[in-house]
Amino acid sequence: MIEKRNTISMEQAREILRNQITHLPVEKINIGKALNQVLQEPIFAPFPAPYFRRSGYDGFAITETDDENYPITLRVVAEVPCGETYDKPLMPGETVRIMTGAKVPENASKIIMLEQSKETNNKKEITLINTQKTSNITEVGAEFAQGDLLLDRGHILNAGSISLLASFGINEVQVIKRPKVAILSTGSELVSVGNLLPDGKIYNSNQPLLENLLQIHHAEIHAAEQLPDNYLETKKRLMELTETADLIITTGGVSVGDFDFMADIAKDEAELLFNKIQMRPGSPTTGMWLNNTLIIALSGNPGACFTGFYLLVEPVLATLMGKDQTATKQVQAKMATDYTKNNGYDRFLRGTYQLSETGEFLVEPVGSDMSSALGNLHLTTCLLKIPRGKVGKFTGEEVEAWLLSSK
Amino acid sequence: MIEKRNTISMEQAREILRNQITHLPVEKINIGKALNQVLQEPIFAPFPAPYFRRSGYDGFAITETDDENYPITLRVVAEVPCGETYDKPLMPGETVRIMTGAKVPENASKIIMLEQSKETNNKKEITLINTQKTSNITEVGAEFAQGDLLLDRGHILNAGSISLLASFGINEVQVIKRPKVAILSTGSELVSVGNLLPDGKIYNSNQPLLENLLQIHHAEIHAAEQLPDNYLETKKRLMELTETADLIITTGGVSVGDFDFMADIAKDEAELLFNKIQMRPGSPTTGMWLNNTLIIALSGNPGACFTGFYLLVEPVLATLMGKDQTATKQVQAKMATDYTKNNGYDRFLRGTYQLSETGEFLVEPVGSDMSSALGNLHLTTCLLKIPRGKVGKFTGEEVEAWLLSSK
Repeated sequence: MIEKRNTISMEQAREILRNQITHLPVEKINIGKALNQVLQEPIFAPFPAPYFRRSGYDGFAITETDDENYPITLRVVAEVPCGETYDKPLMPGETVRIMTGAKVPENASKIIMLEQSKETNNKKEITLINTQKTSNITEVGAEFAQGDLLLDRGHILNAGSISLLASFGINEVQVIKRPKVAILSTGSELVSVGNLLPDGKIYNSNQPLLENLLQIHHAEIHAAEQLPDNYLETKKRLMELTETADLIITTGGVSVGDFDFMADIAKDEAELLFNKIQMRPGSPTTGMWLNNTLIIALSGNPGACFTGFYLLVEPVLATLMGKDQTATKQVQAKMATDYTKNNGYDRFLRGTYQLSETGEFLVEPVGSDMSSALGNLHLTTCLLKIPRGKVGKFTGEEVEAWLLSSK
Repeated sequence: MIEKRNTISMEQAREILRNQITHLPVEKINIGKALNQVLQEPIFAPFPAPYFRRSGYDGFAITETDDENYPITLRVVAEVPCGETYDKPLMPGETVRIMTGAKVPENASKIIMLEQSKETNNKKEITLINTQKTSNITEVGAEFAQGDLLLDRGHILNAGSISLLASFGINEVQVIKRPKVAILSTGSELVSVGNLLPDGKIYNSNQPLLENLLQIHHAEIHAAEQLPDNYLETKKRLMELTETADLIITTGGVSVGDFDFMADIAKDEAELLFNKIQMRPGSPTTGMWLNNTLIIALSGNPGACFTGFYLLVEPVLATLMGKDQTATKQVQAKMATDYTKNNGYDRFLRGTYQLSETGEFLVEPVGSDMSSALGNLHLTTCLLKIPRGKVGKFTGEEVEAWLLSSK
């Protein structure tokens, strides 16, 4: 009646998942939609920056010949606002009124700042006093030479790098696709928020949890649905989703009960990777391939669903997106309190952390350690591991922790 | 010819801006769109959680009367999957096959785990062995009593708190509105990415920079436009934008040149807050009210625009959103290198930081300190302040730093 499952550690489950996948294919996208995606090509400067000699100040451009015996009075032959050009070579005796950021005329060797100028009675002339040694000209290629590497393959695009691409007129880049993730909540007890709640049923809280966690981690939500406990219906919908989703996350139905159809599908229809992890909460968390699509079947208990997302799903998302680090950061921490419950399995507690004055991460559990608890998910800023086979962890003891990314 | 401006410190400019504004009005929104918004009402549990006595295991529900003299053989009167109910009181001699998470029948006092059961020859009966002391029943209100405070006013909604709301069927909440921010890049030299680049012009990199920075900080981009240097056109568009935007960020035109029309609009049309900050880059950064809308007019130099966003715009966004902390975190740090350039103004360098083993933030400049430089924005993880009137900062010296939020 009770099925025996082979257990593996959480770390082994992570390793199995990591070894099963690689990053998604590349796509060319507009830089306006590329925030947080991984660049899959090196980007070289298509032209030098600046590509013209640029005035650093508002002032007057002069030739090298005139750059002595100050004060000097020169004929103003043109006014060059930003974005316009003076297309003749500047001649000795001439000056061009030029604005910050404008192109310096050919033959000009210095910009005399506006503050160093004096109007004359003749409106076509200006007198310049010079106390400056620098040219006030940014030379061509001062920041980047043509062909310089701007951004390397593997770079995660941020606001700064997207503006850098824009400055070179680069409108599209090759990036690794964002994973299309389908969420399927299973359970005949589930009712969607916004509906009346019949006796014995509960509102589906896992679906909004996963939707927001996926959004925070920059995945694309491909579908978010819920189904009653029904083998054929669940199998049918999963098969359909495998046609288009890059990853499917399910909740519920993974235990060994009579209505745990995800567990049955994993055994009967899919290539099972694991279905028992030596961890609490979430020991029946199941990994499988179905129709060439990876499915991570989380427990339907909110605490287990949350913990499973950060420990098992997030690393998969990072790998699919081509990121060599997870957003969840594993650290060695110290217990700020005692946790003395015995446990046959490794226990991953929801907790909070703070950085001590001496640079240690001090962690402590927050709220209930029950798998079914969901009153502490919003308070959780880290997970911490109480290894099995010990009577917990005492204040000051070293503990593995995972700092969660929640924004 | 040259206008004299009153200078204030960056800290004073922040303070002036902070004192000018308060949080935006409240709106009722669906929880599906509420991530990162600030709750503006306390939320109390509308019913206890769980609201029914919940089975913690797959097994058999028994009455207190039968809970002795094991093994016992009982008549199986019903099967209660998750989400269904057995609506008669359980009688001595009877048992109900019950699933994890299902409602425990009236009169039942314990769930005997499936593992402790043995089938009999009579399919309508089951033999139960008991080695357990606990009831395996989660009582009504075990996690939250009706009326318990779930989330307090001021809480920033995250994945966990949204799932908590969902679990109570709470579909809508009162939050502070997201600010609608308009971006207006001014400059006749600007060309939008995707177009050909005429000589002397440059691609507009500030607009994508600000769009992404606003997205990262959860503001709503209300408009993102660029205009040539033209007083009337700029004034007209600003006036239109003030009708609908909560905040306008402009770039360019704030200096003292002949084409710096933002500076003129600030003086002639608006209520000027400041137009000269003792900071580099970005000293001509201007704050003003125009038609009851706050405008922060940043320098058009990419380095100044980036720095100004984090030091001046981000705190305004946080205040508008009702957040009592900025995403940008100010810390005391230590210089990891020398920076020995003299400067009449406070200098805010783009830099990187790391946490030392002893818990100190070690910071150092990254790339160029030029206002016009944009090759280091994507590498910048902090800003650091080199105060004026000193020959820089030396390795090991204390320095103020701002850790940037970039995801």
